[in-house]
Amino acid sequence: MNPRLFSFVGGTTGAWRVVRIDTRCGEPLSSAERLDMVAGTPADARDTRWVLRGVTSNERYVTRAEKDRLLAGQPSLGRPEATCAALIPLRKNADWWALTQDERRRIMEDRSRHIAIGLQYLPAVARRLHHCRDLSEREPFDFLTWFEFSPADAAAFDALVAELRASDEWQFIDREIDIRLVRD
Amino acid sequence: MNPRLFSFVGGTTGAWRVVRIDTRCGEPLSSAERLDMVAGTPADARDTRWVLRGVTSNERYVTRAEKDRLLAGQPSLGRPEATCAALIPLRKNADWWALTQDERRRIMEDRSRHIAIGLQYLPAVARRLHHCRDLSEREPFDFLTWFEFSPADAAAFDALVAELRASDEWQFIDREIDIRLVRD
Repeated sequence: MNPRLFSFVGGTTGAWRVVRIDTRCGEPLSSAERLDMVAGTPADARDTRWVLRGVTSNERYVTRAEKDRLLAGQPSLGRPEATCAALIPLRKNADWWALTQDERRRIMEDRSRHIAIGLQYLPAVARRLHHCRDLSEREPFDFLTWFEFSPADAAAFDALVAELRASDEWQFIDREIDIRLVRD
Repeated sequence: MNPRLFSFVGGTTGAWRVVRIDTRCGEPLSSAERLDMVAGTPADARDTRWVLRGVTSNERYVTRAEKDRLLAGQPSLGRPEATCAALIPLRKNADWWALTQDERRRIMEDRSRHIAIGLQYLPAVARRLHHCRDLSEREPFDFLTWFEFSPADAAAFDALVAELRASDEWQFIDREIDIRLVRD
């Protein structure tokens, strides 16, 4: 098993209670009461509605200057006060994947300020990106991004995703689900 | 199954006869008489010594200008005259993967001219790159590159790999196997 593989399991168990699942575009995801995040693949498939899997990987776009600013500001997962979370599975369309590295970087950062926008919300929002597109199986999404924040920062998190969704980069997204959760 | 997944099966069957397996660095790979390249995962594991798997993916480094030159010059796999092949599995070390995108691009192209060197050997050498690092399983290599060329271009192919191995980029490689094959 890839040691960087994580599974997000929607069903009836897990530390996170699902508050809502919004389909932003593309095919919906079926409902679930709770969500479990596990390293590797879940051992037990009982009471599972869906399993979304992805691997953490090397940086694909950030420069050293941006990475240093991210490292200085970004909090770790699992802060006691971060009782709110979001899982946002995304798929980008074939036009995006046919672009070259310089073209994707230009859309993502020069035109959409994806990294700069994210930096504005540090240290409030913890984030971990998982890649699905190059797993061995055919996966329903390209990326799974997991965010954790405190209830006091929930409005700021809404502003963050609204800014990103208004960007040029989002024109390449053909499936997006926004899953909000609380730990209780 | 990911539709971009390919398996290279070392054993006693397959269209390609193994001429030699050279361990350039790191742990060796066990010997095999023949190699089969199959889409997806092999159905039958009998007489199999090893299976190396990887997915073709989006471009990670090339710019649009470089991509256009590659597309103009690169031949497809399966040319009747291309009866020689090489499979070169590579693994890069942790230092490489900790670099940011701009740092890796600088080493790979500005300092090592990886893409420019490859362009010099078109249209003689056909190439397909497979990524293994972000598969679901723990894989022994990060990349599998498959090359096809005619016997008349075998010396040119040796010059190509010698140029790349002399580059700064190769200082980050901690396992490399060079498998040479002929179709008979």
